[in-house]
Amino acid sequence: MRRERFGAIETGGTKTVCLIGSSPDDITARTRITTGEPKETLAQVISFFQEAVEEAGPLDAIGIASFGPVELRRSHQRYGFVTTSPKPGWQDVDVVGPVRDALGVPVGFDTDVNGAALGEGRWGAAAGLDSYVYMTVGTGVGAGAVIDGSVVHGLGHPEMGHLVVGRRPGDAFPGACPYHGDCLEGLAGGAAVAARWGRPAEQLDGDELDRALELEAAYLAAGLRNIVYTIAPQRIVVGGSVAALPGLFPLLRSKLSEELAGYPTLPEHASDDFVAPAALGPLAGPAGALVLAIQAHEGRPSQERPKS
Amino acid sequence: MRRERFGAIETGGTKTVCLIGSSPDDITARTRITTGEPKETLAQVISFFQEAVEEAGPLDAIGIASFGPVELRRSHQRYGFVTTSPKPGWQDVDVVGPVRDALGVPVGFDTDVNGAALGEGRWGAAAGLDSYVYMTVGTGVGAGAVIDGSVVHGLGHPEMGHLVVGRRPGDAFPGACPYHGDCLEGLAGGAAVAARWGRPAEQLDGDELDRALELEAAYLAAGLRNIVYTIAPQRIVVGGSVAALPGLFPLLRSKLSEELAGYPTLPEHASDDFVAPAALGPLAGPAGALVLAIQAHEGRPSQERPKS
Repeated sequence: MRRERFGAIETGGTKTVCLIGSSPDDITARTRITTGEPKETLAQVISFFQEAVEEAGPLDAIGIASFGPVELRRSHQRYGFVTTSPKPGWQDVDVVGPVRDALGVPVGFDTDVNGAALGEGRWGAAAGLDSYVYMTVGTGVGAGAVIDGSVVHGLGHPEMGHLVVGRRPGDAFPGACPYHGDCLEGLAGGAAVAARWGRPAEQLDGDELDRALELEAAYLAAGLRNIVYTIAPQRIVVGGSVAALPGLFPLLRSKLSEELAGYPTLPEHASDDFVAPAALGPLAGPAGALVLAIQAHEGRPSQERPKS
Repeated sequence: MRRERFGAIETGGTKTVCLIGSSPDDITARTRITTGEPKETLAQVISFFQEAVEEAGPLDAIGIASFGPVELRRSHQRYGFVTTSPKPGWQDVDVVGPVRDALGVPVGFDTDVNGAALGEGRWGAAAGLDSYVYMTVGTGVGAGAVIDGSVVHGLGHPEMGHLVVGRRPGDAFPGACPYHGDCLEGLAGGAAVAARWGRPAEQLDGDELDRALELEAAYLAAGLRNIVYTIAPQRIVVGGSVAALPGLFPLLRSKLSEELAGYPTLPEHASDDFVAPAALGPLAGPAGALVLAIQAHEGRPSQERPKS
């Protein structure tokens, strides 16, 4: 019996990563495409897979983890589309259709961050858990929730970057979110950090780094508190460039403990494992697209929302 | 074939409601017991059902919707217990065990608010939906989330009364939550309203009522925003005595719209149906216990959490 082979596509605002394999330890081909005009970009993606099929045989399924917003309701006319993206040219663009039509295999589809959540759940920091959240803190803040083994979709998809986090006393920075000003992303995303301090998070040092870390941990902790109180996850995995600032995790755990204030009393919340660094790094997204491909192959459309 | 008969128990801090039937429109017996010492209260509950069985034949299953905190993990030694309740005598009390042992039928178990969420989903304001939230705003604030038809449990259960909601400019009330001060419940629960204005919500009028409604709607809207951004529900059903204040719902919908600020752009969020009043009133809890009984009868333990 031949080994199963899947295609994975992670589309991002600046680059699109494609790979072929069955797990992060078994990747047989990969490419990186600059995300340009939709038609041209998708044509390059399709060529990559067509050539790989000619050379090494068929794929069983393809998974796409896409930047958003996207339409995930299977019953919706625009299922598989990028919908109202601010990225030039990417409004109302069918992503799933062209890939499925050109390659003739089942296609799984979800947001980039939901994909990354699935990747961390299968091969990374949330392996073995069935209810967890993956949050990425980069330029923006996004998160995906997995409950009972399935990614949470309802009406659209979660937008945890825009949670209410309150304001630290004395913090005069107005916030950088164009919609909400001082939401989680507006106060703690990489763009907010850069705007607040006049340079990117990675370039901060000394006293300024200490103060930046303190605020970052405080706002992230308020966001995580909202997540804990809304879905009671078994773990929260945090990744992204801002989360990689040295010393952030111990501070974040301590601030979250203050936020929860011992309510409810669960020893698990006090464990270092409860707020864990992401394990797959930049591979989380493509690995998630692999999970989407595997789910599509197994006939498990995680996006199926018949009643919505 | 005989008709199915279920027992339902909703335990509350002051009273415990028991009933027998198959739906809110088919209730054949009911009683109301003052919630006293655990042993005595549970004995009275068991007697009610034993007598009903002697008179009218066996039950197929019983559901219990309990005040909390409770242990919901099936694999846990204390599954079915009220755990750290502040109610005198109710720490570490087995609720499921005595009922199951005395009556010899399958017993479903969940929190009171999760039960009410199931009741509203089966017969009330969330009927036909598979992803929704039920929130009750009474003395405290609690909520249950249903995703893909199942109540959300993870590590413990949600505690949405304790969400971060920020603070309205100029609001000097410190908040009434013993754990967090100014969380959602601390600012918008009935106890907070009474402490803020010096009398219960139901007794407010004139200008004071207007100002109270404005604040109430603002804080509830911030809480609902967090819920929308975390789990993207198809609808949020709101019940409880404070939610019944005249004029609250239109104000709440308008404030939620301000909170979301058009992100993401979903027409469903603008519909009056999106934030809907609870339909079952005080019957939501017992009706939810009926759903728990039905699920237990169908061998679907909504509490099963093998990996947690």
